[in-house]
Amino acid sequence: MSGSTFGKNFKITTWGESHGVGVGVVIDGCPAGLPLTEDEIQTWLDRRKPGQSRFSTPRKEDDKVSIQSGVFEGRTTGTPISLVVYNKNQRSADYSEIASYYRPGHADYTFDQKYGFRDYRGGGRSSARETVGRVAAGAVAAKLLERLGIRFLTYVKSIGPVAIDPARFDAAEICKNPLCMPDAQAAADAQSYLQTCMQSGNSSGGIIEGIITGVPAGIGEPVFGKLDSELARAIFSIGAVKGFEIGDGFEAARATGLSNNDAFYYDETGKLCKKTNHAGGILGGISDGDDIIYRAAFKPTPSISAKQDTVTKNGENISVCVKGRHDPVIVPRAVVVVEAMSALTLADAVLENMAAQADIVAHFYQHL
Amino acid sequence: MSGSTFGKNFKITTWGESHGVGVGVVIDGCPAGLPLTEDEIQTWLDRRKPGQSRFSTPRKEDDKVSIQSGVFEGRTTGTPISLVVYNKNQRSADYSEIASYYRPGHADYTFDQKYGFRDYRGGGRSSARETVGRVAAGAVAAKLLERLGIRFLTYVKSIGPVAIDPARFDAAEICKNPLCMPDAQAAADAQSYLQTCMQSGNSSGGIIEGIITGVPAGIGEPVFGKLDSELARAIFSIGAVKGFEIGDGFEAARATGLSNNDAFYYDETGKLCKKTNHAGGILGGISDGDDIIYRAAFKPTPSISAKQDTVTKNGENISVCVKGRHDPVIVPRAVVVVEAMSALTLADAVLENMAAQADIVAHFYQHL
Amino acid sequence: MSGSTFGKNFKITTWGESHGVGVGVVIDGCPAGLPLTEDEIQTWLDRRKPGQSRFSTPRKEDDKVSIQSGVFEGRTTGTPISLVVYNKNQRSADYSEIASYYRPGHADYTFDQKYGFRDYRGGGRSSARETVGRVAAGAVAAKLLERLGIRFLTYVKSIGPVAIDPARFDAAEICKNPLCMPDAQAAADAQSYLQTCMQSGNSSGGIIEGIITGVPAGIGEPVFGKLDSELARAIFSIGAVKGFEIGDGFEAARATGLSNNDAFYYDETGKLCKKTNHAGGILGGISDGDDIIYRAAFKPTPSISAKQDTVTKNGENISVCVKGRHDPVIVPRAVVVVEAMSALTLADAVLENMAAQADIVAHFYQHL
Amino acid sequence: MSGSTFGKNFKITTWGESHGVGVGVVIDGCPAGLPLTEDEIQTWLDRRKPGQSRFSTPRKEDDKVSIQSGVFEGRTTGTPISLVVYNKNQRSADYSEIASYYRPGHADYTFDQKYGFRDYRGGGRSSARETVGRVAAGAVAAKLLERLGIRFLTYVKSIGPVAIDPARFDAAEICKNPLCMPDAQAAADAQSYLQTCMQSGNSSGGIIEGIITGVPAGIGEPVFGKLDSELARAIFSIGAVKGFEIGDGFEAARATGLSNNDAFYYDETGKLCKKTNHAGGILGGISDGDDIIYRAAFKPTPSISAKQDTVTKNGENISVCVKGRHDPVIVPRAVVVVEAMSALTLADAVLENMAAQADIVAHFYQHL
Repeated sequence: MSGSTFGKNFKITTWGESHGVGVGVVIDGCPAGLPLTEDEIQTWLDRRKPGQSRFSTPRKEDDKVSIQSGVFEGRTTGTPISLVVYNKNQRSADYSEIASYYRPGHADYTFDQKYGFRDYRGGGRSSARETVGRVAAGAVAAKLLERLGIRFLTYVKSIGPVAIDPARFDAAEICKNPLCMPDAQAAADAQSYLQTCMQSGNSSGGIIEGIITGVPAGIGEPVFGKLDSELARAIFSIGAVKGFEIGDGFEAARATGLSNNDAFYYDETGKLCKKTNHAGGILGGISDGDDIIYRAAFKPTPSISAKQDTVTKNGENISVCVKGRHDPVIVPRAVVVVEAMSALTLADAVLENMAAQADIVAHFYQHL
Repeated sequence: MSGSTFGKNFKITTWGESHGVGVGVVIDGCPAGLPLTEDEIQTWLDRRKPGQSRFSTPRKEDDKVSIQSGVFEGRTTGTPISLVVYNKNQRSADYSEIASYYRPGHADYTFDQKYGFRDYRGGGRSSARETVGRVAAGAVAAKLLERLGIRFLTYVKSIGPVAIDPARFDAAEICKNPLCMPDAQAAADAQSYLQTCMQSGNSSGGIIEGIITGVPAGIGEPVFGKLDSELARAIFSIGAVKGFEIGDGFEAARATGLSNNDAFYYDETGKLCKKTNHAGGILGGISDGDDIIYRAAFKPTPSISAKQDTVTKNGENISVCVKGRHDPVIVPRAVVVVEAMSALTLADAVLENMAAQADIVAHFYQHL
Repeated sequence: MSGSTFGKNFKITTWGESHGVGVGVVIDGCPAGLPLTEDEIQTWLDRRKPGQSRFSTPRKEDDKVSIQSGVFEGRTTGTPISLVVYNKNQRSADYSEIASYYRPGHADYTFDQKYGFRDYRGGGRSSARETVGRVAAGAVAAKLLERLGIRFLTYVKSIGPVAIDPARFDAAEICKNPLCMPDAQAAADAQSYLQTCMQSGNSSGGIIEGIITGVPAGIGEPVFGKLDSELARAIFSIGAVKGFEIGDGFEAARATGLSNNDAFYYDETGKLCKKTNHAGGILGGISDGDDIIYRAAFKPTPSISAKQDTVTKNGENISVCVKGRHDPVIVPRAVVVVEAMSALTLADAVLENMAAQADIVAHFYQHL
Repeated sequence: MSGSTFGKNFKITTWGESHGVGVGVVIDGCPAGLPLTEDEIQTWLDRRKPGQSRFSTPRKEDDKVSIQSGVFEGRTTGTPISLVVYNKNQRSADYSEIASYYRPGHADYTFDQKYGFRDYRGGGRSSARETVGRVAAGAVAAKLLERLGIRFLTYVKSIGPVAIDPARFDAAEICKNPLCMPDAQAAADAQSYLQTCMQSGNSSGGIIEGIITGVPAGIGEPVFGKLDSELARAIFSIGAVKGFEIGDGFEAARATGLSNNDAFYYDETGKLCKKTNHAGGILGGISDGDDIIYRAAFKPTPSISAKQDTVTKNGENISVCVKGRHDPVIVPRAVVVVEAMSALTLADAVLENMAAQADIVAHFYQHL
């Protein structure tokens, strides 16, 4: 019943529906003394804002964040940080029709089954608008992690059948094209592909890849709190995600031990390194100091204007063309959501790890 | 620091190391009145027992489970169920050597980084032996779910490059071959492949697929408690898992909305059905009543006898051949672990869902 | 770090400071379909509103609650209910002085020690204003419990040395006097006593008593989730509470087994009853079907205008008269806070109990 | 359903029934590298052992603890520590009779109501024997805290009407008399009183007081994670506790702000001190560096041989004399249980506090 909280130490609780008063998040457990402004959070929210290209919903929203608590004189106080973004551009009338039937690929039917009824306006709580709170909180988590040298690079790896070419990888390109791909050629091809999809009222899926750098070795808790397990859970909690893999992922299933094991060595400075990174930076659920690399598969946007078969609540088989303002592909806008969930996962794990050794705990309190 | 607990309602805490006194689990939150015997749990443990074919470690273990609490006169009492399996066949001498160096692909290095030292005997807590507690608890969860009509079919889909042919799928075959594959031909081919791996002191990865049937619609909590998110986390907490997908998974990223959406319809009896099941039985994080289908990618066993480069704790670059009794492929023995984690996830979600509607809560208490 | 969440099933997270934008709460886990209006919540908030008598701070606040999510067409949807009350009557200037010194009996010093600095305006997060979120959430919990027949009667039992006389107990009197005492004579005496306190710039403590009726037998979880343990925690989380007892409480320590045991009997209708209720309605941490009776001791308001010795942050010993608008006694306004925390505790426990028996779980799912 | 886990960071899960195989605890989250032996834990268990004087049950038990995991080469490894004590001296036959009726003051009736049936042998899970796991875990927590300079002094303050005289307080006396009272005269008087109770087949309640020294300022989380709230919950989770208070406790309700506030001052060394300690070492839920002082009220042992009225499960009103081997007073044996729960609460809070400040988190990771 209570699934809107994420994290144990850096804990967030999101709230809000697509067409309600607004959407928001309460962050509980952010350490005190972190400089924080609304502008810093806004930068993250702007990355997920709709209406920035012809490949996202024309629904325009300012999505201006407001800090309602937990920050005093420009710094976090250690108490809950409440962030809110008010809804502005609701056109609920667009959605009244869907009260009566179940859109394929959406949660309309399952919400009704679970709760007995649902807020059908724009998908209610199951709308992608729910991710606003995640992104706002993720900005704060990333700010904290930045001080520890942990950074995030996240981008679109493929859209439909069009994937980036590793040989052309260019991180600077990510923010230059509307599809957030680090390969200008792939981005151009993907735009052509999407154009075709849109002409037939269709949509496309895609894959997002993330690289987390600067994570010290030792983060993650053995058994059920493994860092990859927490990351999998975090990313899989984003609507539309259907697959998650770390390092070589599904390829590793086809590999042998000899090809998949990453050999350790000490470099000339005496630093322990790995010759390869098939593991994706995590061994036994604990970070090994190398880059953490992961991928998430997103299904195509289920809201399409092409005609589909479905049912009404009242027992009829019907055909529908889903109205409303939709994204032909959600993947580029989801990049910042994936990055936010990664940051939240890392922030939680980093705080958890502080008490791993008795000597360090003792040292901490002796030097208070 | 405290990662050995899984679940919120049907909550388990595992303990134990590969070469300590034993391994065990405490289940807290199992409803009262469930008939339960040691034999029922033993059946599950026997499925993960090593030494049953030439493709698993020759380390022989009886792995006899003992119920230490929570069951009275053959039924669960609602209080914690403590289950223990004592270790019998430890040959710690095999492992004393690995105290000094870090095995590639293992958690030796990361445990040292996190905790300052480690129980190096047989991998200690990061040994696959840790899964004994999961399997024992999973047996209890499955027993509970069986009464609700929820059942599990889990098998090996591929080993290295050898995958089953869906056209030859035969569930009855799963328990007939040592690789737990539902396709006799693929099982034979995979055995040949493994034989080759073993000859060169190498190992193989593979993919496990699971189908959960009989799950009523409505299970799973929106946002961060989505059923697929919890399942991803559960499966990803198993050592060696590098990828997880549900329904069409990574294939969905290449699909279009029109091909990926599952059309609803009412059948002749008036039952709501889906024409396809690309979603894998979950929509918006909530079960839709259809079969839940998922896959997990396992990396190759990292313990191989072929020579590898690595380092000592003390700064030397060395080459090693890892000794000990290892599985050339862990995947067949992991089938029951995956099934156990699925059962634990479902049991937790099923109990969570009971209070989703105020009318049902009121009805429950009015009829006590 | 993350102490602003209460409850496991009916889970609330409060946020906000005395002189920030506002105070609020997010309720996650309220069952769907519960009719709920802002007016119903407002009724509860009005009971804690300051400025209603000469015995509470003259700081005037409208404290109008706004539902921001989780309610659709007048009913809860099962998703998070976000409630906010904006701050209106802040006079932060009153408090700038206290930035430099530590008020005796307040959390100024301990917040500085924990967090390195603090939002000093009006006590920031440690202000009694923090309880607005609790009361708003408590109103929703009570609404849910009302449908199960569970009701709350909460009142002031004593103020300073003036206690109610059980022989004069009159529940109807509670809302008739400004001190919420069920005894008009005691209320008059207490007012005289408070008048004396106020004349010397002093304040008074007091005791609140609560009676919860209609709780079915079986609520509460053995060992660490005992209903009395959860209630103790809930009530003790209210600032200024220094003692909590249930049933005969501290008196039971002076009693004998023979006098303290409550004899069971079947009445003429065959209903199991207790001849006495020394236990206060809870046996072994589980409700026994009888009234739950408890008491909470509140210390005197620490903010007093009489001169006190204290220290500055910078090492000086000083004397101060704390300025600002304070309550000479917080106890009457705390009545609704205590009731809210009781309701939240019960709501959480009632939902938790639904899955106690395997037969009931099975029955629930067979009749979906 | 799942109430047998306590703590968030230093997390324990207890299991076991009075007449089952044994009782135990799994500690998850104990920092690595803490030296730990079975003997150290045994010292604590020996303090709660029955049969040490004529004032406790003659049931003799060795209660030898065995470490089953989590300790390697004499130090904790950071993984779960499983501790078990096997039951030896069960005489279940003594209890078969109570299967049919409900003992007054016990949880027989409430367990039946909650779970549908119960393990009636010796009270099953609701037996005081359940506290073995708490005490064993408490020993580990105290060992960790000892390194931080945190120490516990716990004793019996009163038995029935006989209380210690503060003027005669002598800590060295606590372990010299069978009642654990720091006042030889009071101990003698209490023994006489108990003798009288026993002659009439009766029992007595009492009060335990605890003092925690060396707690640094800053421990405890505002709002719902207040240190006093967590302590109240911990102590109230011990069976038979009916009241808890901190500092002046219920006396504070009769006090005025002027008499109850503790004035701050800097002593000659520049250390911040309090002139008094009415608060009991906690302000706003956070430790203030002073001694933490609290009291717990225990009801009389409900098992008495004197005749009492009660009922059978089958609808009869009967009279019974409860057989078995019982303590005429549980309070002296509960001293170590109270101390254990205090240590567990503090250990959890101390670890939680480590990430309170962003600068400290950053410093921690920069110096790994």
